[in-house]
Amino acid sequence: MRHRILEAAATLIAREGIGGLRYDQVAELAEVNKTSVYRNWPDRTTLIADALTAFAADAAPLHDSGDIDADLVDFLETLAAAMASPQGRSLQSVVAAARENPELRAVVDEVSGRRQATLHDRLRTAVERGELPAIDPRFLGELLTGPVQLFVTRGARAFTRADAHQVCAIVLAGVRATAAHGGESSLPGTQ
Amino acid sequence: MRHRILEAAATLIAREGIGGLRYDQVAELAEVNKTSVYRNWPDRTTLIADALTAFAADAAPLHDSGDIDADLVDFLETLAAAMASPQGRSLQSVVAAARENPELRAVVDEVSGRRQATLHDRLRTAVERGELPAIDPRFLGELLTGPVQLFVTRGARAFTRADAHQVCAIVLAGVRATAAHGGESSLPGTQ
Repeated sequence: MRHRILEAAATLIAREGIGGLRYDQVAELAEVNKTSVYRNWPDRTTLIADALTAFAADAAPLHDSGDIDADLVDFLETLAAAMASPQGRSLQSVVAAARENPELRAVVDEVSGRRQATLHDRLRTAVERGELPAIDPRFLGELLTGPVQLFVTRGARAFTRADAHQVCAIVLAGVRATAAHGGESSLPGTQ
Repeated sequence: MRHRILEAAATLIAREGIGGLRYDQVAELAEVNKTSVYRNWPDRTTLIADALTAFAADAAPLHDSGDIDADLVDFLETLAAAMASPQGRSLQSVVAAARENPELRAVVDEVSGRRQATLHDRLRTAVERGELPAIDPRFLGELLTGPVQLFVTRGARAFTRADAHQVCAIVLAGVRATAAHGGESSLPGTQ
């Protein structure tokens, strides 16, 4: 039931914006009693944050199969698909609009922070297991997701699994190659 | 004089938006005669496109020193600084707003296309000189600039020259390492 309520809330947020979210509409769409929504989420901003977080986690899950390369390819592929989907596009517009409002901005920043933490935790685990050399997980996260976001935003063509594969192959090979040189850059002429 | 007019136009666009650009204000700010603006740019959209292109080229130039690694570090560092500057931020909001209007969208898309072409041409030249292995310049451009855009948008801290250096070091090492494996990915378990 919890999941059905969050799905209904995300659908309504995509349609009406964050400011327009009403508990009675969430209850109706989720086909639950309104008190079930109030009991689980007495705080409206928590409902919003949980709904957006659940949408992102469902649409672009980050697994731990024990193979960081494979998990990141899956993640980037689903991330791009989620961003390009109609609901993903609506939610991005809604989130961009929410950033103009200080209170709503805090909510969307929290969602964004939770999402980044999931990725950073997964990268940190891979470093601990020796699958990746020591690297700031925040920096590596940006190297991986930045190109995907730019690609999808430009929208020249769909971001395919082959693209996800190539981003991961190049970035992870680069991380490993530069670490092999003792953490120093292997760039000539720029030191 | 041409440059002074374009600078004045970019300043006014950052302040008032693309729709609000007026030739008499451009002339006044550039301290030239209004006919000088009309004679050089009889078409208003060309003035807008040229002003935005000139701003970007001045703020984040892409040189050809013969050393692609060094030129890209300089480029990413200045790109981040330009995006984070007050005028750069204003122009990004203006450009985002312009995308909602079909006619203005065509202008900002043209500017974006010109900018990308400059980067792609520079990368293509580096491939021809054997500084980089054969790679789609569009894809490589996204690997390099995507992380910078994400970093600046998140705004947790300033993007430094050391960051520019690390992005280039990792991405270019990755491109070279994956090409060394015969163009195939070196990722295990994801084929």
